[in-house]
Amino acid sequence: MTDVRIAGVGLTHFGNHPERTGRDMFAEAAGMAVSDAGVQRADVEALHYGNFMGSLAEHQSHQGPLMAEAAGLDCQATRYETACASSGAAAREAVRAIEHGDADVIVAGGMERMNNMGTAGATEGLAIAADELHEVRAGVTFPGAYALMARAYFQEFGGDREDLAHVAVKNHENALGNETAQYQRAITVEDVLEAPMVSSPLGLYDSCPISDGASATVLTSEEYAEEHDLDAPVAVTGTGQAGDRMALHDRESYVRTPAAEEAAEQAYTDAGVVPGDVDLAEVHDCFTIAEVLALESLGFYGPGEGIGAARRGETTADGDRPVNLSGGLKAKGHPVGATGASQLAELTKLLRGDHVNSDAVPDAEVGVAHNAGGTVASCVVHVLEVVA
Amino acid sequence: MTDVRIAGVGLTHFGNHPERTGRDMFAEAAGMAVSDAGVQRADVEALHYGNFMGSLAEHQSHQGPLMAEAAGLDCQATRYETACASSGAAAREAVRAIEHGDADVIVAGGMERMNNMGTAGATEGLAIAADELHEVRAGVTFPGAYALMARAYFQEFGGDREDLAHVAVKNHENALGNETAQYQRAITVEDVLEAPMVSSPLGLYDSCPISDGASATVLTSEEYAEEHDLDAPVAVTGTGQAGDRMALHDRESYVRTPAAEEAAEQAYTDAGVVPGDVDLAEVHDCFTIAEVLALESLGFYGPGEGIGAARRGETTADGDRPVNLSGGLKAKGHPVGATGASQLAELTKLLRGDHVNSDAVPDAEVGVAHNAGGTVASCVVHVLEVVA
Repeated sequence: MTDVRIAGVGLTHFGNHPERTGRDMFAEAAGMAVSDAGVQRADVEALHYGNFMGSLAEHQSHQGPLMAEAAGLDCQATRYETACASSGAAAREAVRAIEHGDADVIVAGGMERMNNMGTAGATEGLAIAADELHEVRAGVTFPGAYALMARAYFQEFGGDREDLAHVAVKNHENALGNETAQYQRAITVEDVLEAPMVSSPLGLYDSCPISDGASATVLTSEEYAEEHDLDAPVAVTGTGQAGDRMALHDRESYVRTPAAEEAAEQAYTDAGVVPGDVDLAEVHDCFTIAEVLALESLGFYGPGEGIGAARRGETTADGDRPVNLSGGLKAKGHPVGATGASQLAELTKLLRGDHVNSDAVPDAEVGVAHNAGGTVASCVVHVLEVVA
Repeated sequence: MTDVRIAGVGLTHFGNHPERTGRDMFAEAAGMAVSDAGVQRADVEALHYGNFMGSLAEHQSHQGPLMAEAAGLDCQATRYETACASSGAAAREAVRAIEHGDADVIVAGGMERMNNMGTAGATEGLAIAADELHEVRAGVTFPGAYALMARAYFQEFGGDREDLAHVAVKNHENALGNETAQYQRAITVEDVLEAPMVSSPLGLYDSCPISDGASATVLTSEEYAEEHDLDAPVAVTGTGQAGDRMALHDRESYVRTPAAEEAAEQAYTDAGVVPGDVDLAEVHDCFTIAEVLALESLGFYGPGEGIGAARRGETTADGDRPVNLSGGLKAKGHPVGATGASQLAELTKLLRGDHVNSDAVPDAEVGVAHNAGGTVASCVVHVLEVVA
């Protein structure tokens, strides 16, 4: 098996972009990634593309060939959909295809438009990632589902809204200099606590925004990178994916996300690392409580111990293991289908040293990306390492 | 690389099933496939699942984990979407994962519900497989797009509606004894020619129906099949996938489908066979003209020569190389996300000798499945062979 390098990355601005089409955004991100990598478009053998609700937002499925065309790629193209983990899954299959020699160069990325549906429309659209029959019809929305998880966590382990507020404050702080982030604006714990309640205990600032945006990565084999003299020091050394029951009520616990634990274990084993080796992480903080659960699933903290991590300053930019230096879904934004590959793009820049927040992790060698679908009924984890 | 066996297959009835849910149908198909294979559900390592428009038909995306749960599978699950080639793409990635040793047992299948949207709703839903911006807004529907291809074909090569009618008559004839087929009813050339016109030159009987249904296959490594003493004589020996411009007007020709040609070439090369070795095929006859184009793309006929194949009796059950012995999309039905894996299921039974139409191909050793998305902007081709 060959090593898989992340040779280039590209990101559009995440935000509210009513003036843009999906193909326009993906073409921008893919073009940036191809330029960043220094590869020829003709060398790209496949597009692995993540999109979640394009059939609702743009009346457009079958986006694989459409986006390949928009990006100037002449290759096979497949859309992967695992809700919010769509481009994480797309990237994972690209990594495995290259590892096994099925291809030398693959573009893995994703795109989502959401704002054109309006807030209510986007909330309804997002609900198709939950169990329509047993959750959605009963009135469960994603803020509601994660609120249940937060309440259960508080009840089982303690912790309070102020602990969660520190997660939001940290991620907004990290996004301040990230020019692709939706919110480049500092907030305080008071702001979070005083914001309108969405679904108790989660308020407006505990929730990620509704975002439009696209992301892309160019993945190549080690051999291709060397032959073409690419500057590609970051490798994907581990991947994992696992699933869980779709509906919260079918789970044994509301305060554990076993799909993430299993995906992380697979990825760590694949990479030959342990949680203690990880220098930084991008995790799926669609809500503040989701970051807490991610920290525990990734083995950075034991059950019930992740809640205080941001408050204690352990996951802040100046902490021992910074988490979501990009700003996370919370402040950078969450264009669903783009998020998984966006995490890989941000981590790559952080590890290469050309991210606005690279100074926070000058000696970092190992990064982890945690990309979850729904209430973690799907999870994809990647380990990235500096290898050159 | 290991050989990949199709150890078991399962199909629901294809038709109009307002009384059923998607998960109910997929659970039935997957359960049949698991039983047919004789594998333990606990041994299944991944679900590769195809679905096209569940977010419209059932307000349900993120169907991977949902369908895994419905089928009693505890494993990672990913949805693949390449329009009508969705479960073909899902199966192809499963084949490659097993070939490379990433897994020993994968369930690959798909499901679609369409009738609950009504005829107009389903037609609008299907249109999301075309280019929304440049085709759909201009009024192009799939019957319209394929009608353009048929007109161009007639103009360039000759042929007429009666030639196409023979394709429909043949496929209805083949479906007569297939108990999972939507239409088990013989039709005549006159029926086809006198049926209401949908989009000239394609009439009602030139078009596949709107269908609900599910399909599943259990794919295993050769080693697993031998260790567990499975009766799995059919192997997937070749796969290919390719893409094309999304919109018809961006293509060089309306009478060629180069994505299918390229996918077929990849699959033949992978399997080490040539078109002349192929004993039977299941091809993507969403419209009668589509079967003609498929025959030419697969190398069975030169350009302009496929139009008369059914009329000359070469692709009928008693012909030299029977095509769509299942009844094809035309008569068996076309629940979009289920179709690709359904073709593999039908071919497997035909090659194993336990299909109602196996008597038509008693010595068959090589079968080909051709699964296309949109107006063949995506195409997946598989070669199946009897190896044990």
